[in-house]
Amino acid sequence: MSTRNLTLLTDLYQLTMMQGYFENDVNNHEVVFDLFYRNNPSGNGYAICCGLEQAIDYIKNLHFTDGDIEYLDSLNIFSKAFLEYLRSFKFTGDIDAIPEGTVVQPNEPLMRVKAPIFEAQFIETTLLNIINHQSLIATKAARVVRAAEEDTVLEFGLRRAQGPDAGIYGARAAVIGGCHATSNVLTGQMFNVPVAGTHAHSWVMSFDHEIDAFRAYAKLFPNKCILLVDTYDTLGQGVPNAIAVFDEMKAAGISMDSYGIRLDSGDLAYLSKQARRMLDDAGHEDAVISASCDLDEYLIADLKRQGAEISLWGVGTKLITSDDCPSFGGIYKLAAERKTGGEFIPKIKISDNPEKVTNPGIKKVLRIYDKTTGKLKVDLIALEEETIDTNQDLVVRDPKARWKKMKLKAGQYTVRELLVPIFRAGKCVYESPQVMDIRSYAKEELETLWDEYKRLINPASMPVDLSDDLYYLKERMLDAYKTE
Amino acid sequence: MSTRNLTLLTDLYQLTMMQGYFENDVNNHEVVFDLFYRNNPSGNGYAICCGLEQAIDYIKNLHFTDGDIEYLDSLNIFSKAFLEYLRSFKFTGDIDAIPEGTVVQPNEPLMRVKAPIFEAQFIETTLLNIINHQSLIATKAARVVRAAEEDTVLEFGLRRAQGPDAGIYGARAAVIGGCHATSNVLTGQMFNVPVAGTHAHSWVMSFDHEIDAFRAYAKLFPNKCILLVDTYDTLGQGVPNAIAVFDEMKAAGISMDSYGIRLDSGDLAYLSKQARRMLDDAGHEDAVISASCDLDEYLIADLKRQGAEISLWGVGTKLITSDDCPSFGGIYKLAAERKTGGEFIPKIKISDNPEKVTNPGIKKVLRIYDKTTGKLKVDLIALEEETIDTNQDLVVRDPKARWKKMKLKAGQYTVRELLVPIFRAGKCVYESPQVMDIRSYAKEELETLWDEYKRLINPASMPVDLSDDLYYLKERMLDAYKTE
Repeated sequence: MSTRNLTLLTDLYQLTMMQGYFENDVNNHEVVFDLFYRNNPSGNGYAICCGLEQAIDYIKNLHFTDGDIEYLDSLNIFSKAFLEYLRSFKFTGDIDAIPEGTVVQPNEPLMRVKAPIFEAQFIETTLLNIINHQSLIATKAARVVRAAEEDTVLEFGLRRAQGPDAGIYGARAAVIGGCHATSNVLTGQMFNVPVAGTHAHSWVMSFDHEIDAFRAYAKLFPNKCILLVDTYDTLGQGVPNAIAVFDEMKAAGISMDSYGIRLDSGDLAYLSKQARRMLDDAGHEDAVISASCDLDEYLIADLKRQGAEISLWGVGTKLITSDDCPSFGGIYKLAAERKTGGEFIPKIKISDNPEKVTNPGIKKVLRIYDKTTGKLKVDLIALEEETIDTNQDLVVRDPKARWKKMKLKAGQYTVRELLVPIFRAGKCVYESPQVMDIRSYAKEELETLWDEYKRLINPASMPVDLSDDLYYLKERMLDAYKTE
Repeated sequence: MSTRNLTLLTDLYQLTMMQGYFENDVNNHEVVFDLFYRNNPSGNGYAICCGLEQAIDYIKNLHFTDGDIEYLDSLNIFSKAFLEYLRSFKFTGDIDAIPEGTVVQPNEPLMRVKAPIFEAQFIETTLLNIINHQSLIATKAARVVRAAEEDTVLEFGLRRAQGPDAGIYGARAAVIGGCHATSNVLTGQMFNVPVAGTHAHSWVMSFDHEIDAFRAYAKLFPNKCILLVDTYDTLGQGVPNAIAVFDEMKAAGISMDSYGIRLDSGDLAYLSKQARRMLDDAGHEDAVISASCDLDEYLIADLKRQGAEISLWGVGTKLITSDDCPSFGGIYKLAAERKTGGEFIPKIKISDNPEKVTNPGIKKVLRIYDKTTGKLKVDLIALEEETIDTNQDLVVRDPKARWKKMKLKAGQYTVRELLVPIFRAGKCVYESPQVMDIRSYAKEELETLWDEYKRLINPASMPVDLSDDLYYLKERMLDAYKTE
């Protein structure tokens, strides 16, 4: 799939601006763009960044085919010289990014693109599309998995995903966010992640009697025999038929590694408790009860509170679309510019709305951990050239009330740089880990957060500070603008 | 893009059930599945069905490659005989569907698949994925376009779409639902639809002075010169600079076909009225004011009520994700089955929840129009073999209170069958219209609805009745089940 030509997957205005840079002979001015976001989705206390592998594939495959040039020519808005120039287009710049699966916070550059303006501008839309989508679903999945506590969570949403890619890459992101497997076979094949699933109502309906459908299924898949019991009457017929088949299997001496039932409708709290009792009374204490009916993190948490006897959750629509917050607000803003032969000059976007004012200059993200607990203490957005000497005390400030200070004692904290090199001079210098390894890493990442940051509702907000150097640069630029 | 192999884009359970049908030697039993939905999205009074062209491409390209077989084999759940059988898999059945752009209602089969159960089962997930996604976005777009009344609506959502396909096919669906153009260049290329867009904040920021950025842009694109005026200070600097550049262009005798400004932040009602006055005072009465800031149908309708001076709307995130309702609940249910040599037997899915009980049998959808006004009167879901003689009176009933009857007088109504043949014996017999033609057709479709059905909030609900034959078949089957 990575060989799809997505070069024209962009907003028209990127191309009209590129023609503008080209005609004004500034196309080789080097710029730095930051890809960041302003609010965590679903009121969460963090996000999990995701999608870098696909962003890399996209950049690697960038090229305008003859057909692309011909199409652009047909729009009658581009000059022949510009179109000719596009034929040799490729990405030649540097990209740094935060690895997939990392816990991230608003305003931190998830990606930093340093390239000629002609190239950096062009890739904005698709980078945002990919990173926004996968970060959204990975974050939602982390919420769902947290609600399910130690239970298994399966991603089942393909049929309600917003198109094939939303299903394919949404499932990838859901696994990175913590789901144990997906029903999506193509995602399984492409990314070597576990796939799961048993049978639907139509299987039961295609037999004259429900019990025949169960028998046939158990015979075929004795080791993964989860029977869907709600086609006709869950407690009156479905569960008794399932128990009868489990009894027959046992009587015939056929071992069943993993077996049980699935509830897909009705009052899941009540039905699961009744079904648990019926299964236990029949000696099937090891039978699993799974559920899959319009679930999300709120419903799962509520079912848990009610003591529902469910240990395997199939989560579909509301995870794969991030139902309560179906977009991730990643943006891509100019942070610095260098004219030919000059130095990089910080750039700022002003707004009446203070939180929409951007952070100027070439920046990095420093994550500071408590040395004893290993827990995340604070993130610091700093200028590229700044360093922290961990043998010195470090004072960080509350970003919204800078007089509130926190002193980190020398030797009691560690510092990690989040951005890592991805492209250098157009060449990819990064190898994406396997998805299941990213999943393990994301799990470790979440363990560095105190529980207060991981609450589903009203989480504590993690401090993200600006270094003093960055803070004063920003203030000076704002001040200079106002007096202009 | 249509040559992508999406064969493994399915839920694992489709394949485990297929192995079940295969091992039980019922894989060639013919079945009929209906693809339908239960509720209109966003509380709308109808939906616009969409995605058929991509569903057809998917069916045409179905085949398991060696790599696919090898992957399935690696899962260790499929028999060699079954995997061997998959090598020759293709779709050999019949499909009827309601053409894209048609106004549809809950419970009407949008697609009817008649095929061996082995094939009909397999295609469920991807058909749903494609039709659900595009019908969702087309319906949302129709709402947004209605809110904008006679104004132009542009689709701008690619960067927030749920992955590349959600951007590509979402833009296609948005145009079918009524948008005039999209910013998405790839959608423009693939489907020959108009593309639109001018410049971003980064264009302005890359110049030392805003007015230089405007001048450069106007010089380059005098005929499509929409200047973004909110980078620094909309009324204090942006609009005056735009006016200065428009003045210069006029003074230089350069004609500007389509020019104006774009507002992308702030109080759009206030800013647009002020900007309109400033433009008019400067003699630029023909300058367009466009806006693009988190718009949806509710905000557009509200801005209209406030008298906002905006006539061109760029709608992004909330359209491309259908923000208030990010999924379309299409489902795919078994309606009939024929064992080898037998007749088709109607099938029904029972549920404790009456509206979840399916309609059994092979069905069609009859749309009845008032002959005088051309307006849609009622839809009738009927059995395939039923006919209506328009020279006779026709009595239809309220589906929720069948004693409420409506008599349509002989000769005063017309009848149209909505389902048309798409595949016959595996061969595609349908040619998809061009997207812009589907858009025109959808517009005509909307004209057959009284305004009451098109209200954005609390629309009247359009009557969809069951024919008497279908109604009594369903009652008999439910009754037989209950006494079993």
